[in-house]
Amino acid sequence: MNVGVLGIGITKFGERWDQGLRELLLDAQVKSIKDANIEAKDIDALYTGNMGGGALSGQLHIGAMATENLNINKPSSRVEGACASGSLALRAGILAIESGEADIVQVNGVEKMTDVSTEQVTTMLMGAGDEELEGFNGLTFPGLYALLANAYMSKYPKLTRDLLAEVSVKNHFHGARNDYCQFRKEINIDVVKNATMVADPLTLFDCSPITDGAASIILASEAKAKELGSKVSIIGSGMGTDSLSLARRNTLTAIPAGKIAADAAYASAGIKASEVNFAEVHDCFTIAEIMAVEALGFAKEGEGYKLYKNKDTYFDGKIPINTSGGLKACGHPVGATGVKQAVEATMQLRGEAKGRQVKDAEIGVTHNVGGSGASAAVHVFKRVK
Amino acid sequence: MNVGVLGIGITKFGERWDQGLRELLLDAQVKSIKDANIEAKDIDALYTGNMGGGALSGQLHIGAMATENLNINKPSSRVEGACASGSLALRAGILAIESGEADIVQVNGVEKMTDVSTEQVTTMLMGAGDEELEGFNGLTFPGLYALLANAYMSKYPKLTRDLLAEVSVKNHFHGARNDYCQFRKEINIDVVKNATMVADPLTLFDCSPITDGAASIILASEAKAKELGSKVSIIGSGMGTDSLSLARRNTLTAIPAGKIAADAAYASAGIKASEVNFAEVHDCFTIAEIMAVEALGFAKEGEGYKLYKNKDTYFDGKIPINTSGGLKACGHPVGATGVKQAVEATMQLRGEAKGRQVKDAEIGVTHNVGGSGASAAVHVFKRVK
Repeated sequence: MNVGVLGIGITKFGERWDQGLRELLLDAQVKSIKDANIEAKDIDALYTGNMGGGALSGQLHIGAMATENLNINKPSSRVEGACASGSLALRAGILAIESGEADIVQVNGVEKMTDVSTEQVTTMLMGAGDEELEGFNGLTFPGLYALLANAYMSKYPKLTRDLLAEVSVKNHFHGARNDYCQFRKEINIDVVKNATMVADPLTLFDCSPITDGAASIILASEAKAKELGSKVSIIGSGMGTDSLSLARRNTLTAIPAGKIAADAAYASAGIKASEVNFAEVHDCFTIAEIMAVEALGFAKEGEGYKLYKNKDTYFDGKIPINTSGGLKACGHPVGATGVKQAVEATMQLRGEAKGRQVKDAEIGVTHNVGGSGASAAVHVFKRVK
Repeated sequence: MNVGVLGIGITKFGERWDQGLRELLLDAQVKSIKDANIEAKDIDALYTGNMGGGALSGQLHIGAMATENLNINKPSSRVEGACASGSLALRAGILAIESGEADIVQVNGVEKMTDVSTEQVTTMLMGAGDEELEGFNGLTFPGLYALLANAYMSKYPKLTRDLLAEVSVKNHFHGARNDYCQFRKEINIDVVKNATMVADPLTLFDCSPITDGAASIILASEAKAKELGSKVSIIGSGMGTDSLSLARRNTLTAIPAGKIAADAAYASAGIKASEVNFAEVHDCFTIAEIMAVEALGFAKEGEGYKLYKNKDTYFDGKIPINTSGGLKACGHPVGATGVKQAVEATMQLRGEAKGRQVKDAEIGVTHNVGGSGASAAVHVFKRVK
């Protein structure tokens, strides 16, 4: 697989009371087009990840909004797979190019979450789980991931409360160095441990926030990318699925769909986990990042804690994780997150991640999960030499 | 383009109080797998069209539901483009095969609409239009299509009220001959004209109903289709987009996205409109079918009425339209409609449309619209000789 990245665009993440769903999307779209140095009419197809437009803004049909924003009439679809929507849109864009139906594709992700109550957002997000088995019975996402955290920490007690908190501390450290990030303050372990309990053992600082934001990336065929001087390629894509509910899952101490996706992406890229220089992973909750680094093969199951003992996952460590600040600090506009990860990977590989730049990065991966693990997608990015 | 159709499955459309969203989807999935004579594990990827799962059932993330239903962990996405969701899922499936990433793909469409109030459905459906310009100001879909009908009939008065009603009469005639259809009673022009006014000039019998239902189709690469003896191929796919709102549209007397999609699909198939033997088109309202036959090139703009003067669009006429009964009689479970059209086209080309079979059908097209015309997709099906 070899699909070029021509351009990237991203809005400031946060409580964006100055922009609505349409404006956030437009902002990211225009930025990626400018960055790619193309014109809107050069785009052959568009894919946009969005999860909550219907529930939070009354607006479905976001594919048509994306083309209307650019005043073009090209094929355009919304892709949804809960919090993995952005990565599924990215995968759809890659396949459109590989099919030969499109030469240049714009992939977007957008979410507008802060105009409504937290209750409305929480209810919408439960659409990512199993409505009949989980939502109907009162479960919400912090509760689902707390169940995973308890199962994991009971089986693997070497992941202590302090090491789990380190995930959040590290992501805030990175976020403080990223200007599109929602929360730009460094914190320490005590802040995490002493914060309001959300769902034991997860406190407020173990949980990603509610965020507005959009991200956009322009993809091109190998030939077109070469012609236009693309500096980054996507060389692997993988996706896996699993049951919507935890009740029907084979394990609660891992997210198997993440491993399926990682293995497929590595196979498609022809690389091993040991060749990866950095990763953006799905830390919707701190425990999810531990499971992510294990799914990606950076540690064996139950041994992810080791990476958090000696700052290995900091931008200047052995395997930098979430240099953007991750979902925790950078923010989690759900449909945009997968595309944001692709934007950050591209910035790293182009050497533009000022203040958090991974040295000599050649290969980076993005890892995006939907729900409590019912969908997962992994993509492999490589610097063009 | 040459993608094989290995199998089809469809549920009975209607008020399906006996089945929920998951069961409807499963029913269609299992039927298409049996019809294809494959096993679930042979499927490489899944795409499922759904519009209102979030609003009407609290369930997003339908892609993972589709794989969970089959107990497989393959890549699976939900695709949404309002009432065109099914066709956009079909297009995604075709591209996945053309990309070489998948050899066998299951494309599904599902909608569960009758468990909630009509007000909830109407509000959800407005997510297909422009929430800021239209929904916020009180417009609903019958109103939007009434605006189109008035604009059209004012410019082209030869489309009389009686001829417009003929669309519904003909679709009910076909529906009476289709056992998966929601409404199986023949009607006459007076029934349409004398029905409750919904939005002048559209009465209840000019409007498609609220429907539960699911449809499924198994696609295969050209080589795999040949190996497994597929009898039908998809030889063309096209999609067009336009503004979400009517206010920003260049014309109100046509749906330009439909013509863009048709032209692209014909070009991709290498055929002309005159070679098409029958079509399943998007008659969400009677006026939409008139605009559809014009977009597909069966009549010039303003002259679609001619096809409705002499029963040309009946199953034994010159250009049969909506032998399934169309959205009007067969029902309109919005995310399923595009896939249902593909199922009906396949049945016709396999000679299985008992009681409504188009004689010697070789080429059929499906035409599916999202919103008031912000998205449209056209696919060309051909009998394998």
